[in-house]
Amino acid sequence: MDAVPLYRQLATHYIDAIRAGSLKPDDKLPSLRHLMRQHGISLSTALQLCRSMESEGWVEARERSGYFVRRPRRLAMAAMDEPAADRAPDPAQFVGIHAKVSDFVARRRRVTDKLDLSIARGAPGLYPSEALRRALTAALRRRPGMLAVAAPLKGHLPFREVLAQRSLRLGMTLSPDDILATNGCIEALNLALRAVAQPGDTVAVESPTFYGLLQILESLDMRALEIPTSPQTGISIEALELAIRTYDNIKAVIVVPHLQNPLGSVMPDSHKERLARLCEQHAIPLIEDDTYGALLDAPMPPRALKSFDGSGNIIHCASLHKILAPGLRLGWISAGRWQARVEMLKFAQTRNNEALSQAGAGQFMATGAYDRHLRHLRQCLKAQREQTADAIAGYFPGGTRINLPPGGLQLWVELPQRLSSTRVFEAALEERIVIAPGTLFSNSSRFDHFMRINCGWPYGEAIDGALRRLGEIVAEVISPARPAPRNPPPARPAPPVPVPHPA
Amino acid sequence: MDAVPLYRQLATHYIDAIRAGSLKPDDKLPSLRHLMRQHGISLSTALQLCRSMESEGWVEARERSGYFVRRPRRLAMAAMDEPAADRAPDPAQFVGIHAKVSDFVARRRRVTDKLDLSIARGAPGLYPSEALRRALTAALRRRPGMLAVAAPLKGHLPFREVLAQRSLRLGMTLSPDDILATNGCIEALNLALRAVAQPGDTVAVESPTFYGLLQILESLDMRALEIPTSPQTGISIEALELAIRTYDNIKAVIVVPHLQNPLGSVMPDSHKERLARLCEQHAIPLIEDDTYGALLDAPMPPRALKSFDGSGNIIHCASLHKILAPGLRLGWISAGRWQARVEMLKFAQTRNNEALSQAGAGQFMATGAYDRHLRHLRQCLKAQREQTADAIAGYFPGGTRINLPPGGLQLWVELPQRLSSTRVFEAALEERIVIAPGTLFSNSSRFDHFMRINCGWPYGEAIDGALRRLGEIVAEVISPARPAPRNPPPARPAPPVPVPHPA
Repeated sequence: MDAVPLYRQLATHYIDAIRAGSLKPDDKLPSLRHLMRQHGISLSTALQLCRSMESEGWVEARERSGYFVRRPRRLAMAAMDEPAADRAPDPAQFVGIHAKVSDFVARRRRVTDKLDLSIARGAPGLYPSEALRRALTAALRRRPGMLAVAAPLKGHLPFREVLAQRSLRLGMTLSPDDILATNGCIEALNLALRAVAQPGDTVAVESPTFYGLLQILESLDMRALEIPTSPQTGISIEALELAIRTYDNIKAVIVVPHLQNPLGSVMPDSHKERLARLCEQHAIPLIEDDTYGALLDAPMPPRALKSFDGSGNIIHCASLHKILAPGLRLGWISAGRWQARVEMLKFAQTRNNEALSQAGAGQFMATGAYDRHLRHLRQCLKAQREQTADAIAGYFPGGTRINLPPGGLQLWVELPQRLSSTRVFEAALEERIVIAPGTLFSNSSRFDHFMRINCGWPYGEAIDGALRRLGEIVAEVISPARPAPRNPPPARPAPPVPVPHPA
Repeated sequence: MDAVPLYRQLATHYIDAIRAGSLKPDDKLPSLRHLMRQHGISLSTALQLCRSMESEGWVEARERSGYFVRRPRRLAMAAMDEPAADRAPDPAQFVGIHAKVSDFVARRRRVTDKLDLSIARGAPGLYPSEALRRALTAALRRRPGMLAVAAPLKGHLPFREVLAQRSLRLGMTLSPDDILATNGCIEALNLALRAVAQPGDTVAVESPTFYGLLQILESLDMRALEIPTSPQTGISIEALELAIRTYDNIKAVIVVPHLQNPLGSVMPDSHKERLARLCEQHAIPLIEDDTYGALLDAPMPPRALKSFDGSGNIIHCASLHKILAPGLRLGWISAGRWQARVEMLKFAQTRNNEALSQAGAGQFMATGAYDRHLRHLRQCLKAQREQTADAIAGYFPGGTRINLPPGGLQLWVELPQRLSSTRVFEAALEERIVIAPGTLFSNSSRFDHFMRINCGWPYGEAIDGALRRLGEIVAEVISPARPAPRNPPPARPAPPVPVPHPA
C-alpha cells in the first residue's frame, strides 16, 4: 500500500462514497480547509486530491463555491421506448442468421490491431486466473487418476453439490442429481431445445435477443418467433399471450430473465411468476438462460425463473463463462420433467464433461473467495458501464439513447434519427473500431438503429478515444457534408480512470 | 529391482521371448541343467523358474522330455463366419436403441461390487496419468491466463499442430486449420452427421456396430441401414454397393476402419480405396471413426481412410479417449469440403473446447513419451486379449467362437447353438458379472448369440474366475438340467499373469 500516494488513497475513499451513494450528485465535497483538518494533510495534498477527482470526472469545480459531485452525463439522456405489445408479432422468417453472423465475424477477424467493443466479454484481469490455477493444480495433485477414467455422465459430484447449494439462494431446491454439467450454457440451451421441440417447430424468443440463440435455433432448424421485449422488464407477457393465442405451434419459450443480452433488462419477480403460470397453463416448456444473474447489482441474488416452477415445466440453464472463467466451458442444466431426456441427449451428443475443470471450479466456488470475486467483478463492471455510458452521453449526437442496466457487461445504444448501425459498423471498422450492429440481434432488421457496446474492458484512454471517435463517426454518418456536431460537446476528453484489478 | 526374486526375473525373460515369438508353441525350454549352467543358478532356482511358468500357463511339462511352450488354446477354435453380402440389407427400423441401452445401463448400475466386462475401456493404470498431470500443471503455470479467455473456436493451435503432424503418418496431409477440436469423437460424429444429413435421412453403418453410433443416429432422427460386415476385413463393399443401388436415400456411410467396435475387424488398404471411390462416385459422404487405429499391433500405423480422399468427400473423426486419456474429452474432426459447415455447427452446439486439456495433451503428444506410451499400451492389451481369449477357449462350451483382433481392448464372442446372450447376460448379472449382449450392437436382434467382452483390465484371478464362471453359465443356459459340460475341460484354473503397468 505504501506505493499509493496519500492523496490517491483519500480520493479512492471519496470515490467509494460517491459510488455508494453517501455523496450524491450536487453534494459539495468538504472544503479544502476541512479536508486538511480532517485528514491532517497539507494544502497541496488536499488540492491534489480534489484535482485528481475532477480530472476523472467525479467532481466539478464551481467558482468560489468549491468542488461538487457531478451529475453523470448519462442521466441527462431520455429513456428508451417500451415496445408495443398489442399486436401479434410477425412469425419470424428463416433469414440466415448464420450467414449474417459469419459475415460479421469474418470481417471483424480481418481487422488486426483493433479495438473490439462488439463482444460480450470481461477483460481477463477481471477473473481470478491465479486462484483457479491453484485450485486446478491441487485437484490434479489430489487425484491425477481423474485423467484416466471417464467422469460420471451427470458431472463431477462435488461440483454439482456446490451448484445445488448455491441454487438455494436463487429460490430453487435442487439436489445434485437434478443438475447436469454441460459444455457451457450453449450446450445446455441446445439440449433443452432438442428435448422439448423438433425441427420445424416454433420457439418464442425475446426481441432483440443474442445471436447465439438465433444460431442455435437455425442450426436445429427451428423457427424463432420474436416477442417484443422491454429494455426494463424483459419479455412482454401480454405480447407473448397474444402470440400463444394467435399461433398454435409454439413449442417452447426461451428467456434471459436477468440482464438480458443485449437489452440488459431484468424481469421483476411478479413478471416471472406470471410467465411461469402462462407457460404452464398452455403446456409450453419454458427455458431460462441465467448466464448473467450473478452480475446483477443487488443486495441479494435475483430469484431464478425456475423458482416459480410448480410442475417441472421450467428448464434452468446457466454457466460460469461470464462470471468466473471464460476459459472454462462449464455450464449446467436442470431440466425439470425433461431431465432424463436431456441426459440421454447429452450422452449422445458429447458424453460426460471432463472432471478436471469441474473439480477446480467447484473447489473455488465452495470458498468465500468466490463471493468476494463476484462482488469485486460487479463493482468493476459497474464503474466500467457508467464510464462508458457517460462517454457515449458526452460524445454521441443528441437523440442518442442508452439503456444502462443494473449489472452486466454491455450497453444497448439507440442511434438518433433511426440511423443505421450497419453504416456505423462499416465506417468504424475502417478505423479498427468494432461494434455489434443491432441487426445481429434479430432475424429481422428492426434493430438496425441500435448497437451493443461491450463494457468488459477496464475504462482507459484507448476505450475513451474509441468512443469519442465513434461519436464523431455517428455524427458524420448523419451529416456527411458538415463537420460533426456534438451535443453536448464534451468539455474535455475523459481521462482514464484506474479500475482496481484482482491480483 | 532387488525385490523381484531371481527365478522371477528369469521367468520374465523367457515369457518375453514367447511373446516376441523367439520361442514358439511346442519349442522346448532349455533343460534344467542348461538353465543352471547358462544363468549360474541352483537346481532349486531353475525348478522354481519352470514351475512358475507352468503354473501361469506358458509352458507344459511333458514326461521325461522337459518343459515345452504351450500352444494357446484360443488357436484351437474355429474362425467366425463371413457375412452374406449378396442380398440387399433390410432397411433398419427405428427400434428404440435408447430404450434398449438405457435398460441395459440401468440394470448394470443397480449391481454393486460387480465385475464389469461389458464396457470398452482400458484400466486406469494403462494410461500415463502422472505424466499428463505434469503436462497440465506446466501448461497452467506457463499460461494461467488461459482460464480467463475463450480458446480459439478451432482449438488450441499447438494441439492442432501436433495432430496435423501426426496425421502425416496416417497418410493424410492436413494443416492445423483443417482440424477442429471437439468434445470427444462422439461430438465429432454428431457434427459430421449433422453436416451431411438431415432428420429422416438414411445412413449406412456397419453391422454389428457400436451402440453409441446407433444412439447418435436415433437422437438425430436418422435411420441406420445396417450393412453386413466381416469380422476380418470390415464392411462388405459388395453389400454396400447393392444397398446404394437398392435405396436412393442413403445420405452418408460411416465406418470404423481399424479395430471396428465390436468386431475388431481391420479394413485392408485395398478395401479402403474401393470404399472411398464407391462413395465418391455416388456423391455419398463417407465418415471415418478412427478411435482405435493407434491400438493396432503393426509396425506402422494404419493408413487413414481419409488418406484415400480425392475430393474432400471423407470426414475423419478421432479422439484420445481410448488411447491416451479416458478422463479428457478430446476428439477432433477433419471434414473435407464440409469443414466450414462443421465449424458453424460446432460453434452453435458447444462453442470452442477448453484450451487447458488441449495444451496438456498436446505437450505430451509432442514428446517421444507419447509413442512409448502407445507401444506399451499395445503390448499390455495384446497380452490381456490373448489371456482372455485363452480363458474363453478353455472355459466355454465347444462351438464357441471368438474373433481375436490384431489390437484393441475387446473380443467379439459367438455363443454355441445360437444361444441368446441376453439370457447369459441375465444369468451372469445375478452373479455380479456384466457382459455386453450382442443385441446392443444392432437395431435388429440378429446378434443375440454374440457378446462383447472387454479386455481392458489387467488379467488376474478375478477376471479369470469371472470368465470361468461365465463359461459355466453358458453351459448351464444350454443344458439347464445336467451339470455343465465343458469342452475342453480346463486342466486347472489359469492363475493371474502379472501385466506390467506404467509407473
